[in-house]
Amino acid sequence: MNNWDELITIEQMEEATRTLLENGEKVGADSWQQRAKNQTPHCGFGESGTCCRICTMGPCRITPKAPRGICGCDVHGIVARNYLRFTAGGSATHSDHGREICHTLHETREGGNYQVKDPEKLKRIAKEWGVETEGKDIYDLAHEMAELALLEYGKPFGTQKFIKRAPEHTQELWAKADIEPRAIDREVSQSLHMTHMGCSSLPEALIRHSLRSGLSDGWGGSMMGTEFSDVMFGTPKPMDTEANIGVMDKDMVNIIVHGHDPSLSEMIVFYANDPEMIALAKEQGAKGINIAGVCCTANEVTMRHGIPMAGNFLSQENVVLTGACEAIVVDVQCIFPALGPLSKCFHTKFITTSPIAQIPEAEFIRFNAETAGENAKAIVKMAIMNFKNRKPELVNIPQLKTKARVGYSVEAIKKELDGVCNSHVDEFGSLKPLVDVVKSGVLRGAVAMVGCNNPKVRPDTAHIELMKKLLANDIIVVVTGCSAQAAAKAGLMDPDAAKYCGEGLKRVCKLVGIPPVLHMGSCVDISRMMILASDVAKDWGINISQIPLCGCAPEWMSEKAVSIGNYVVATGIDTYLGVDPYTKGSSEVTELLQGENGLCQQLVEAHFIVDTDLESLGDKMIAGIEAKRAALGI
Amino acid sequence: MNNWDELITIEQMEEATRTLLENGEKVGADSWQQRAKNQTPHCGFGESGTCCRICTMGPCRITPKAPRGICGCDVHGIVARNYLRFTAGGSATHSDHGREICHTLHETREGGNYQVKDPEKLKRIAKEWGVETEGKDIYDLAHEMAELALLEYGKPFGTQKFIKRAPEHTQELWAKADIEPRAIDREVSQSLHMTHMGCSSLPEALIRHSLRSGLSDGWGGSMMGTEFSDVMFGTPKPMDTEANIGVMDKDMVNIIVHGHDPSLSEMIVFYANDPEMIALAKEQGAKGINIAGVCCTANEVTMRHGIPMAGNFLSQENVVLTGACEAIVVDVQCIFPALGPLSKCFHTKFITTSPIAQIPEAEFIRFNAETAGENAKAIVKMAIMNFKNRKPELVNIPQLKTKARVGYSVEAIKKELDGVCNSHVDEFGSLKPLVDVVKSGVLRGAVAMVGCNNPKVRPDTAHIELMKKLLANDIIVVVTGCSAQAAAKAGLMDPDAAKYCGEGLKRVCKLVGIPPVLHMGSCVDISRMMILASDVAKDWGINISQIPLCGCAPEWMSEKAVSIGNYVVATGIDTYLGVDPYTKGSSEVTELLQGENGLCQQLVEAHFIVDTDLESLGDKMIAGIEAKRAALGI
Repeated sequence: MNNWDELITIEQMEEATRTLLENGEKVGADSWQQRAKNQTPHCGFGESGTCCRICTMGPCRITPKAPRGICGCDVHGIVARNYLRFTAGGSATHSDHGREICHTLHETREGGNYQVKDPEKLKRIAKEWGVETEGKDIYDLAHEMAELALLEYGKPFGTQKFIKRAPEHTQELWAKADIEPRAIDREVSQSLHMTHMGCSSLPEALIRHSLRSGLSDGWGGSMMGTEFSDVMFGTPKPMDTEANIGVMDKDMVNIIVHGHDPSLSEMIVFYANDPEMIALAKEQGAKGINIAGVCCTANEVTMRHGIPMAGNFLSQENVVLTGACEAIVVDVQCIFPALGPLSKCFHTKFITTSPIAQIPEAEFIRFNAETAGENAKAIVKMAIMNFKNRKPELVNIPQLKTKARVGYSVEAIKKELDGVCNSHVDEFGSLKPLVDVVKSGVLRGAVAMVGCNNPKVRPDTAHIELMKKLLANDIIVVVTGCSAQAAAKAGLMDPDAAKYCGEGLKRVCKLVGIPPVLHMGSCVDISRMMILASDVAKDWGINISQIPLCGCAPEWMSEKAVSIGNYVVATGIDTYLGVDPYTKGSSEVTELLQGENGLCQQLVEAHFIVDTDLESLGDKMIAGIEAKRAALGI
Repeated sequence: MNNWDELITIEQMEEATRTLLENGEKVGADSWQQRAKNQTPHCGFGESGTCCRICTMGPCRITPKAPRGICGCDVHGIVARNYLRFTAGGSATHSDHGREICHTLHETREGGNYQVKDPEKLKRIAKEWGVETEGKDIYDLAHEMAELALLEYGKPFGTQKFIKRAPEHTQELWAKADIEPRAIDREVSQSLHMTHMGCSSLPEALIRHSLRSGLSDGWGGSMMGTEFSDVMFGTPKPMDTEANIGVMDKDMVNIIVHGHDPSLSEMIVFYANDPEMIALAKEQGAKGINIAGVCCTANEVTMRHGIPMAGNFLSQENVVLTGACEAIVVDVQCIFPALGPLSKCFHTKFITTSPIAQIPEAEFIRFNAETAGENAKAIVKMAIMNFKNRKPELVNIPQLKTKARVGYSVEAIKKELDGVCNSHVDEFGSLKPLVDVVKSGVLRGAVAMVGCNNPKVRPDTAHIELMKKLLANDIIVVVTGCSAQAAAKAGLMDPDAAKYCGEGLKRVCKLVGIPPVLHMGSCVDISRMMILASDVAKDWGINISQIPLCGCAPEWMSEKAVSIGNYVVATGIDTYLGVDPYTKGSSEVTELLQGENGLCQQLVEAHFIVDTDLESLGDKMIAGIEAKRAALGI
């Protein structure tokens, strides 16, 4: 049951999950809840970062009696090396996603599977990069830009093109700190080289390179992923959709798209709307085809098509447990290998599509840009033909569903602000109206809330409770990734949710016509947040680090989140984490990352704050924002 | 004490180490022997590869009660992911070394710090790559080639240029298996992406990419490292030198070069021979300047300048413990962080030079291609001025020393074989004479012995005892890395060591005038071995996998060794390991890598053999070689 006038509570969601787990029990399904129990307590060495497996002399573990590894590395070197590797894993992953997007851009053609849907954006980026656009066929331009973009991964000389988008001051900090990101893959390889046995063990050097490697993601691979996805699939603009498990429909063929790369999900969405496919679904006894998303793929397709969001990271098993999922189609990242055996307990087809993400007990349909249309059609068809295999006694779709308005790209945010400008005196396409309400104190500031779920935190609670606290304090929240879905599932993306906010924010929401939590996209789209912060700084005439703004990942779990943390901090934005990044075993590394006058603060004017007490984490964010305001004298 | 007519025994070396450790005790020095004791027993999860730290939901460890990680990954996926990451660490490290060499090539200029010493080799490679050489200034060509080489790391399309050097059959296997290496860094990044949380957990896919990532090292980064080092510093040819700790000289300023990249050590060697520096050394009361090497840097400078080899990986502390080491100058890889505190117990200057390898308690002098001369001069001077700080009561240089002939590049081997050719009937510059003696059974076959030391194996014992066994069985041994130094330290690179060999090998050594163990260089120079095997196959008219040849790393410890193992196997050469690569926790992964009809064997006609019993490992190698002979009917 769902009352549109109220937020869906954590307890309601947990109750829904409980009934789904009961469904699973009937067919002997395993669950993350059970596996997390089995894996607890976790290894203390691993959790504090003090175990080293980098060579086969070990593994070595640091204890008071064994204060150094066999090579002589101390605990600070070990923790810092592990941290850099963690960062590199995330940077490589995000950026490789971006690379796939660039390769897809290279495959675009008039009337082809992939086309240029936002030619203006492509031309704008081309101009930024100094590429002639006049009189050039848009597809020639796309291919030329794709080649240049792909070279950002491996060019022998120079730094990332997009760093020029940052304010001058930020660029100067990066140059001075020697952390301007060069070719993206080079920073990844160098991360592994630096952390190889017998290379760097000086924490400062390792943390510095973590920042650089992170920047190559946020201002390189991720930013290209976002920008060229917009070019091909359209730049998001506000639209209405729905969220939570109740978006699945017992009378429809339910296809869940899950993963990250829109190249796949865009095609699935297209063919799910194909009259031929819909007719086939009806032939099979369904009322039609219902696509819903999980994880960042959900964000990608909701931002551009308003496809409903069934859930986030720790709900991925739930969609199968409904017994009403005909197919869960995945590409890369954050996909539970558990979906293999779980789908076998139901009629669900678990379809992997990428050579990067091959999983046992799945059906592998290799998805290629050249054959994307036929691949997608085959997948949709497979789901439809599976409808008849549903076991009606296992169908249980909890009726939780909310309204959500999504699609807040930077371009869309500026457009919304144009709506409140005075056409006589104001400049259009600027963030000045936002700056003005922050300056005046109507809004106190902003938080970029991002990241995953993690069983170490009661799922979604941190996201939702922190958001509620911030909104009540007139702090606007921009979100991506699983944090976005948590907000949507609870109902915080409904424009009506303005009523939960403090008076200032409430007024702003009403005036501009936005929800208090703005969905900016998937995890790679945190690059949008970097651009937003840069543009605010420029329009305000201050440094990014002076803006009453912070980042927060209260339930993060993946390496990507650490890469993100590094580039958000390196961009000058304090970043608050609710889960420790396996660094607590080293006081030195903790100081370098988190110290109020530590290395990060010195180099890039921002640092990490780790606090697993959520109440305290929220208080610190608010205090941090108020301190920035005080420093500005506003 | 050393008798030139006998090999130095392990016991003599251990006795020398014992007296050095006594030296250390006087000043409170730590040692790897003590640290290894403190770190034993090792974590069983880590050692069997069954611990996963890839996301912060964990760490997860697989047990009968917890057969899957929280994400649902089973033990095979976890072990395989760890294995691919281990490979990627090695591939990135070797290849990044190669990249530095390419960047140095880009800095060469007439009369500069770095010059082209082997223009013929540069032109040969240019022709292979389809680059016009006619009428081109050699430095213009060098820069053009450097840019092309650097693009091998990041080109958006195509595969590694050097794979064309492999026999047609090998290239076909790679194409069929879809493991032709693309841009080197891309394979590294993809390795991290594939193993990111929620990507691949299918062992077959992960092992396949391990082969590909390894190939991008051996036939990419490492091969470019070797080839362009030869271009700049000269292609090695046979020369005589000495080895073991007794190469240090109590009356001289002892400078130890340690690490891997010859760009540094070449310059140190140059300035150590500078009359001005020698005069300064004499002023300071020394008889002169003595350079000796440790680890692969030793191999680089011994191969090209006959610089003596003081020791290998597990002897690196010994050189400081002599109390007679004025400076230990390092670049990258395999450098004990222990050298920081250890050098502080003596007068030794521990000088780090690379941003990639920054180590606490070291003096960091950043070494740049542009300023290499002045950097090197400053370092040599610092060592000289430190001579007076020696504490005479701590000086103890064990008098162990052997003769060694080194310098067997592929070019040098062919040249040696030309010497036994009949100029009327034979083709020069070919490996046919070698093929003939193997065919006839005078030699039974060859083993490429490589890799590190590891405290899990009594240091150097496996290298030396296995070599003696192979030599007695008329199997010639080619070596690189720490294996080469083990051989040299024992005396097996003395041409006189032929007397320990079987009758056939003895005859070949005398006739050609070579030692029975041929030093082919540093670890990146295993690429030379790949070229040698390819050329043998071509000259013989058989496939590489048919040659009575195998690879062996009996005491390996680093990620680089696993990358090497992958490319050696992928080249069609069975590879014998004396230390398990953290994979024994998965029966599936073990079968894929080691199965006589496992994935590796099926894809690339070779596999791994892991056996920690050295006697048995040796027997298996000999049996393997004999089986290849039998299959050929020879």
